[in-house]
Amino acid sequence: MVKELVFGHQNPDTDAIDSAIEYSHLQNQLGMDTEAVALGEPNEETKFVLDHFQQPAPRVIQQAHDDVSAVMLVDHNEAQQSVADIDQVQVTHVVDHHRIANFETAAPLYYRAEPVGCTSTIIWKLYQEAGVEVTPTIAGLMLSAIISDTLLLKSPTTTDDDRQVVEKCAQIAHLDYQDYGLQMLKAGADISQKSAADLVDLDAKSFEMGGKTIRIAQINVVDLPAALQRQAEFQEAMANSCQSNNYDLFVLAITNVLDSDTTLLAHGTAELLSKVEGAFGKKFEQDQMALPGVVSRKKQIVPPLQNQF
Amino acid sequence: MVKELVFGHQNPDTDAIDSAIEYSHLQNQLGMDTEAVALGEPNEETKFVLDHFQQPAPRVIQQAHDDVSAVMLVDHNEAQQSVADIDQVQVTHVVDHHRIANFETAAPLYYRAEPVGCTSTIIWKLYQEAGVEVTPTIAGLMLSAIISDTLLLKSPTTTDDDRQVVEKCAQIAHLDYQDYGLQMLKAGADISQKSAADLVDLDAKSFEMGGKTIRIAQINVVDLPAALQRQAEFQEAMANSCQSNNYDLFVLAITNVLDSDTTLLAHGTAELLSKVEGAFGKKFEQDQMALPGVVSRKKQIVPPLQNQF
Repeated sequence: MVKELVFGHQNPDTDAIDSAIEYSHLQNQLGMDTEAVALGEPNEETKFVLDHFQQPAPRVIQQAHDDVSAVMLVDHNEAQQSVADIDQVQVTHVVDHHRIANFETAAPLYYRAEPVGCTSTIIWKLYQEAGVEVTPTIAGLMLSAIISDTLLLKSPTTTDDDRQVVEKCAQIAHLDYQDYGLQMLKAGADISQKSAADLVDLDAKSFEMGGKTIRIAQINVVDLPAALQRQAEFQEAMANSCQSNNYDLFVLAITNVLDSDTTLLAHGTAELLSKVEGAFGKKFEQDQMALPGVVSRKKQIVPPLQNQF
Repeated sequence: MVKELVFGHQNPDTDAIDSAIEYSHLQNQLGMDTEAVALGEPNEETKFVLDHFQQPAPRVIQQAHDDVSAVMLVDHNEAQQSVADIDQVQVTHVVDHHRIANFETAAPLYYRAEPVGCTSTIIWKLYQEAGVEVTPTIAGLMLSAIISDTLLLKSPTTTDDDRQVVEKCAQIAHLDYQDYGLQMLKAGADISQKSAADLVDLDAKSFEMGGKTIRIAQINVVDLPAALQRQAEFQEAMANSCQSNNYDLFVLAITNVLDSDTTLLAHGTAELLSKVEGAFGKKFEQDQMALPGVVSRKKQIVPPLQNQF
């Protein structure tokens, strides 16, 4: 049995960390030899979750091929969101709920994607299909990931599958998921102690669109006006990040997780900023674009940008 | 309910046609409005299958977007193997058992791939998971597709899953699958009435490798020496196809389905032909390369070429 690593995307969120732990546990129950690792330290929200369920944070790796020759990806597939040396290992399994892009293999593989709100929702199904028990701890991780990705089942990405899995996991984990979920989201939404540079990188992902490299970051807050008072800091942090990493455009979505509203900030040439305006059919005013009802990067921010570029 | 088309790859083989019929039937049972279509006429083997189970051949389409805005792909994912206007429709579902390449979506989708011998094996599982009955006709189509793709369970791509599904389908369809399978393979292996130009196009697929467009065709026969007497015709047909379609390299695998052996022919520059030799660690002798035990394009021909290019 050759060992494989299981990991989620760079700048891991709760689903990236939790689904790696859940999927590694499932594979090991099925006789594989896997280790859940991460491409970064857990954020404040994920730390709250791991503390609550007394799980150690997965080991952080910088590269994979010194350690293993094969890996399993959860919650992502695009190469630029994965481990730096992804092209030097074989991807044998993917479980994901995102679009497929910049992903290529030389050989057939196991790939399971569904357009649901959270990777952990799919992994719940894989447990059922394999007849493997979802323990209270695994149920707690799954429920936390789904609440995180769907902002307590309020994001438009939420499906009936996500709702049902949260209900079932809450029973197994003996949790009031509304109460627990609100505590969890608030734990991740306190940005007062973080620098703007850290915040714009915390949950940022890179996308290739129309030949441009676009960085899209999202910050969850509970007080949007307070966050926007730091606009100058965010603009500077985005400009620095574009210069250091050769991004053509940086889009920052600041999302109020309680009210389900987003304000966009952006950094790029006038031409690219006007493409962002075209994507959403709105103008930047004082360099801000209010997007009421928008909470999902995957469903409400990436597709219009993708269409425009 | 918006109608969607379901189809397999260009130059359809039995799995491409059968899995489209099977998956469309499943989706319709689940409340979707789909139609199984094909990107080409059925070959002799598939005609034998459709006749045996009294199924009409699916309608052949040249393009999709005049008809529908969304499609489901079976048995393929690479754009160059799909309908010509694949970039103008949304892909909502993929069920496949090949590598993933040249495939990109703007939005999340349902994607189910497993490294098994046949797409129909995966679709059998989807019927079980959805609790939809596999009728004797659907079972016969599934069994035929698996026997076709695995050359009666002898290809190295064959997995335990494929074997089990064939056994179960044989029970449902009341068939002796060994006897039926041999008849079916022989029906597809009579090449005497076909032109070399037709034969090199019959089960051909295009691949992008290292910036080169490589056409890889496979012909199933029961008498390899007789087929090789037509080598000059095949060389000319490959040369013509390269010129007409700007392929950099054409590789033709002639496979004896009874003995599980393959002889390769190829057309391309000396440099590219030597890369083919490098891929398999053998030389062309009299422009032929014997590959004993090789029967699977996907597992034994594409990966070594992919590695070499």
